[in-house]
Amino acid sequence: MRIVSYGAACSLDGFIAGEDGSIDWLHFSKDVQQVMTTYWKGVDAVLMGRKTWALAAPQAEKGSAKKRAKEAKGPATFVFSRTLEGVVAPGVELVSSDAGEFVRRMKQKPGGGICVMGGGELACSLFAADLIDEVGINVHPVLLGAGIPLFRDAGRRIPLDLLESRVIDGGCVLSTYRVRR
Amino acid sequence: MRIVSYGAACSLDGFIAGEDGSIDWLHFSKDVQQVMTTYWKGVDAVLMGRKTWALAAPQAEKGSAKKRAKEAKGPATFVFSRTLEGVVAPGVELVSSDAGEFVRRMKQKPGGGICVMGGGELACSLFAADLIDEVGINVHPVLLGAGIPLFRDAGRRIPLDLLESRVIDGGCVLSTYRVRR
Repeated sequence: MRIVSYGAACSLDGFIAGEDGSIDWLHFSKDVQQVMTTYWKGVDAVLMGRKTWALAAPQAEKGSAKKRAKEAKGPATFVFSRTLEGVVAPGVELVSSDAGEFVRRMKQKPGGGICVMGGGELACSLFAADLIDEVGINVHPVLLGAGIPLFRDAGRRIPLDLLESRVIDGGCVLSTYRVRR
Repeated sequence: MRIVSYGAACSLDGFIAGEDGSIDWLHFSKDVQQVMTTYWKGVDAVLMGRKTWALAAPQAEKGSAKKRAKEAKGPATFVFSRTLEGVVAPGVELVSSDAGEFVRRMKQKPGGGICVMGGGELACSLFAADLIDEVGINVHPVLLGAGIPLFRDAGRRIPLDLLESRVIDGGCVLSTYRVRR
């Protein structure tokens, strides 16, 4: 069955962006680039909620024809929203039905990895529906105090198994977990 | 100058206890025992707020005479509260003046390490006053969803330097940081 993974770079206190959306504290490095390149090779679908799409849309909709053509060859993107009326970008599909049901069916079809992106609201509903299989975090050495949280309350305790943890460039700690079932 | 450290075991989503105070998910091991034994050798003062004291007090006040005598030889304990009227336990002092001022003076006196315990409210005020030097966390492989947070909003961004991170028994990730100044 296809693996659904959720993760992000975050601060030590668990925020993926500051209160003002700031991500200037993110550390990009060759280590991160290698990890992400390997990860994306296995992914053929990206899921995101309305708010994450709002951040991604200007890039997707207004990119150059060349960039849009390149992105259209990448993973299919599914935007989950009951209020959006449509998205206009190559390779992007709007889903207004129940996210849990949609992803449950998606997992049963043949395909590669499924990546859940964004600020945790979609991920939370998918955690609640027990549809997320792996969690990956890149903990940055900073306390932000407030901001957009990586994890929200899925309403139940979720046990994990650590798959790997290692220090990468910039004093970041990269850890991956599998949801224990 | 004396090192003030704050830390705890926590869930991957940053809680030191569940909403009901549950800590049944904590994993004790020889690894943890070794780390804590080494840590406590360097500590001669423990700081806690009223709520943490409320949890610790029944142990401290009602222990056997033998246990109390043993604890009295351990680190001095300082309980910070403006509402408590007194604490009755050997080696425990109530501090009703400003915590920041008290700890600032304490750091300038000779002595060993200072450990900040508890649910983050005292730690938050000491982070805000830039009095915490080191942070240690033992991240357990579980998402609790809700509970008592390890970190609260100190009102400013606090950059850290990673000192060490390693996997210990039970899939826990132990990391220590120094506050960057």
